[in-house]
Amino acid sequence: MSEENKLDKMRHSCAHVVAAAIKELYPTAKFGVGPVVENGFFYDVDLDTPLSDADLKNIQKKAEHLIKQNLAFEREDLPIDEAIKFFESINQTYKVSLLKDLKEKGTTKMSEDELQDVGSSVENVSLYKTGNFTDLCRGPHVESTKKIGAFKLTKIAGAYWRGDANNPQLQRIYGVCFETKDQLAEYFHMLEEAEKRDHRKLGHELELFAFNDEIGPGLPLWLPKGTIITDALEDLAKETEHKYGYKRVKTPHVAKEALYLRSGHLPYYAESMFPPMEMDNEKYYLKAMNCPHHHKIFAATPKSYRDLPLRLAEYGHCYRYEDSGALFGIMRVRSMDMNDAHIYCSEEQFEDEFRKVIEMYLYYFKIFGIDKYQMRLSKHSKEGLGKKYVNEPELWEKTEEQVRKALLHLKVPFVEVENEAAFYGPKIDVQVWSVIGREFTLSTNQLDFAVPARFDLTYIDKDGQAKTPICIHRAPLSTHERMVGFLIEHYAGAFPVWLAPMQVHFVPVSEKHVEGARKLLEEFEQSGLRVSIDEADETVGKKIRNASKQKIPYTVVVGDKELTGQDWQIRVFGQEEQISMSKENFVKKVKLENDERKS
Amino acid sequence: MSEENKLDKMRHSCAHVVAAAIKELYPTAKFGVGPVVENGFFYDVDLDTPLSDADLKNIQKKAEHLIKQNLAFEREDLPIDEAIKFFESINQTYKVSLLKDLKEKGTTKMSEDELQDVGSSVENVSLYKTGNFTDLCRGPHVESTKKIGAFKLTKIAGAYWRGDANNPQLQRIYGVCFETKDQLAEYFHMLEEAEKRDHRKLGHELELFAFNDEIGPGLPLWLPKGTIITDALEDLAKETEHKYGYKRVKTPHVAKEALYLRSGHLPYYAESMFPPMEMDNEKYYLKAMNCPHHHKIFAATPKSYRDLPLRLAEYGHCYRYEDSGALFGIMRVRSMDMNDAHIYCSEEQFEDEFRKVIEMYLYYFKIFGIDKYQMRLSKHSKEGLGKKYVNEPELWEKTEEQVRKALLHLKVPFVEVENEAAFYGPKIDVQVWSVIGREFTLSTNQLDFAVPARFDLTYIDKDGQAKTPICIHRAPLSTHERMVGFLIEHYAGAFPVWLAPMQVHFVPVSEKHVEGARKLLEEFEQSGLRVSIDEADETVGKKIRNASKQKIPYTVVVGDKELTGQDWQIRVFGQEEQISMSKENFVKKVKLENDERKS
Repeated sequence: MSEENKLDKMRHSCAHVVAAAIKELYPTAKFGVGPVVENGFFYDVDLDTPLSDADLKNIQKKAEHLIKQNLAFEREDLPIDEAIKFFESINQTYKVSLLKDLKEKGTTKMSEDELQDVGSSVENVSLYKTGNFTDLCRGPHVESTKKIGAFKLTKIAGAYWRGDANNPQLQRIYGVCFETKDQLAEYFHMLEEAEKRDHRKLGHELELFAFNDEIGPGLPLWLPKGTIITDALEDLAKETEHKYGYKRVKTPHVAKEALYLRSGHLPYYAESMFPPMEMDNEKYYLKAMNCPHHHKIFAATPKSYRDLPLRLAEYGHCYRYEDSGALFGIMRVRSMDMNDAHIYCSEEQFEDEFRKVIEMYLYYFKIFGIDKYQMRLSKHSKEGLGKKYVNEPELWEKTEEQVRKALLHLKVPFVEVENEAAFYGPKIDVQVWSVIGREFTLSTNQLDFAVPARFDLTYIDKDGQAKTPICIHRAPLSTHERMVGFLIEHYAGAFPVWLAPMQVHFVPVSEKHVEGARKLLEEFEQSGLRVSIDEADETVGKKIRNASKQKIPYTVVVGDKELTGQDWQIRVFGQEEQISMSKENFVKKVKLENDERKS
Repeated sequence: MSEENKLDKMRHSCAHVVAAAIKELYPTAKFGVGPVVENGFFYDVDLDTPLSDADLKNIQKKAEHLIKQNLAFEREDLPIDEAIKFFESINQTYKVSLLKDLKEKGTTKMSEDELQDVGSSVENVSLYKTGNFTDLCRGPHVESTKKIGAFKLTKIAGAYWRGDANNPQLQRIYGVCFETKDQLAEYFHMLEEAEKRDHRKLGHELELFAFNDEIGPGLPLWLPKGTIITDALEDLAKETEHKYGYKRVKTPHVAKEALYLRSGHLPYYAESMFPPMEMDNEKYYLKAMNCPHHHKIFAATPKSYRDLPLRLAEYGHCYRYEDSGALFGIMRVRSMDMNDAHIYCSEEQFEDEFRKVIEMYLYYFKIFGIDKYQMRLSKHSKEGLGKKYVNEPELWEKTEEQVRKALLHLKVPFVEVENEAAFYGPKIDVQVWSVIGREFTLSTNQLDFAVPARFDLTYIDKDGQAKTPICIHRAPLSTHERMVGFLIEHYAGAFPVWLAPMQVHFVPVSEKHVEGARKLLEEFEQSGLRVSIDEADETVGKKIRNASKQKIPYTVVVGDKELTGQDWQIRVFGQEEQISMSKENFVKKVKLENDERKS
């Protein structure tokens, strides 16, 4: 059994125990659903009184007590009508309504959360009994309560029954649950760290980006220091893509409706796009993705097999409509700069091209010190061919096998998921974990064997025949917005030299050292380093603390000694001990760390 | 008298002679207006029959004949009513209606072209007599027809009387006129060259950019080869601006209506902007300029005098609505990448900052081999203060004097024009001439002492007081679109090495040399050069001709000799003679030309 399934069972079982505890403390409680969610579970409950934090503690205690009794989880399968009768008899009206709905309309009208309770069969449902408490649940559960591990109830929120504001509001009790106490503690430690590393807080303190009411929500302004980071990322992309034979292009951010009708984004994706502009009796849209524009560049000049693989790259700026409530710092925005590229190749070239894309990911992961990552290969399903998936059974099999081979060859950890591909080809989501263990989905690679035909893209093959290329969509560095958001958390704002807005900071001891410090600044800048100097009328101690708040990698207090050729004492951010070396060696050291992109 | 005025007099006089010639050939001809335009003049005439090219030649002959007679231009001033009577008597109904309109409504309803005929007084008008022909004209003219110089009638077009499609259509006869026959010949040579160098034609042939119907008119797609050029220009800008202490920023392309209301672009400039998008009950506009966004970046963090001058730079992408009929290749587009920056400084810092901006221009001109350029300083007028111009009399005087000093100091050729400034400060238009002598306005510098206050921009000065900075808008490299359009003509598509999409081209003698040429390509690419190879199954001669069409600076035919370490024979684009050198020296040479941006 996979670790994930084992944990899911614990968490689901824990939700039952919590419900049992509530039932003991509040005998009239009526229950909604209680599914597993990320890191734990929740349970919706209808009570006469609102729960306080103290109540939550009580429930926790009662649940812990039940767990200690090591009660078994006993399963019973019932025909649906009998189950309805049973829940009617114990006055669990929400469960009854769920079961009736299931009986009438089947599983399709159920949410993911509800399905965890009702299961996937309309004829029979399963009940689980734990001590005196019986719950509707598709299972599976752990054998008995002692196998549940460590858990903690975390918060209470309001939630409408079945997510509909016309229904009664229930109280949703959240809990987290892990296999061991240590893992639970680690989780809370991660949360605490994540709060300290909050990219919105640090982004503001470090003056990386800003938002403005008159510009609009979700439309970040990159301040000078933030632009140094995005430029450094862009240089990395340019350099790497150049090595891999990509060609850079540049496309406008708007196009006629016709383009997006052809690509298929309109009308289906219209809700996620900005509204149209009416001009010259035409509708123009801001682009939500770069692919249609790149396809037009492919089509702009005749192509032969000699031109393939053609890799078109652009840090393309896209616009997507997100509900203002869903916006989150720079991690979820309406305007984004994407490390985009489209690779047009033949079927024979695909495996090699895909492998090179993955290699590029691994190269970037190494630079950023991302040790934990996983790829998730979403495949087609045979049943969906011609409906949910473009009807090219052999091409699906072949390319999925090629992706698998490439991932195995490069020893990339990956999972495969049936029936989750895109319409036009298999999809590979790339998940990474920040240094504090939080998971991020940075980007998605997509293989596309349908859209090039919609755009009439062809190349003349060796045999003189016109053929349609397949297309790989890829964006290893994600968007600037998401990537920098991730990196702020990953580095806690203390960027490595090559990304740091300022690399070296000079603190003159007194006014008579300012002139000398300025000369040093000039000298360091001529070596290509990013340097700042604090000329404010403050104490050296205060200035050092200020530099530390800016998380500048190196700070040098400039006094008589430093100006007369003696060895320097250099403060390293996040390190107690100072380092000592000559000015020349220090410049070399910082330059090397910059050029080699050391983390 | 300036050269320009002398030429204008000739051209205006030539228009009269052409009208006189028409009158002799077509006695019933009625005349509209006949003003001076760039390089010459036109005359609108109402005739019973349409004119052919042969008729045009006849008119030219007749006019030349009149010129040889050396007829004097005799001026007569008449009260307007008498002038009306006179033109009625000779049945010149258009002149009559013009005079009546002038009498009723004054000069304000007259177009620039019409004012050249009617003059600026409502009481008295002047007539000029040349031989048997008398015309309404404010003058001045040359003394007699022999002083007219060399001229040529070039074409006939239709034009509605007073530009109104409800009025009768007249025939517009165009002519060009210069002081000497040589200058006239030079002008036609320039036209011929300009046609050969047409940026639309070359841009297509060299695969630099493309347009697409489904994307929209005026929205260029930069193809890979064109993007190499824009990237090279952007690198030049980044490097130069870095040296001058600019800080790079990045701003979204859309903002709420509120931003442009504050900047004053809305509602006055709305016609030149893309139409709004309605989102979340707000109107969002694509930006037509970057300044309001940069102002918001200035305002995003507190500023002190230590932060000034603050120079914010961005190759900002802007959108402007142009009538589809006004679009012209990439020279006049709807979407453009601007080499923008805004310098925020104190009044004391202005002169120095402005000088450095001009220095940067001169640096760029040298790189591009632009030998002829001129700056046009548009100043305020005392009468306009508080109305047409922001009411800061001392600041106007002071900054105009500072601009003048800087231009004199740098020995930049410039002219001063009264009463043509922008509302918020003096304006400096930069005019350059391409190598074939065509004039381009590349960009405008503006000094702005009004808008920073509208955005509440302040800095804390040494004395602890909040002060408003002044702002310089500048864009020396213009937009990518206009600059590359200009450079295509300037270089006739044969870009110098640093801008050339491909720098070195290999032509293998036969199939057995392909492998060796590929290795050379790899070797050259590792040296950072842009190299291509022609592996097509064609003759060497054909391949060399193809390379020449692509205007690649260097072409090397790769045979046994080239692969065995002997000196290479290298074909240089546009040069008969080949050069001979070792591979190593050739790499060094090309690399140097690239790195030093040799033209």
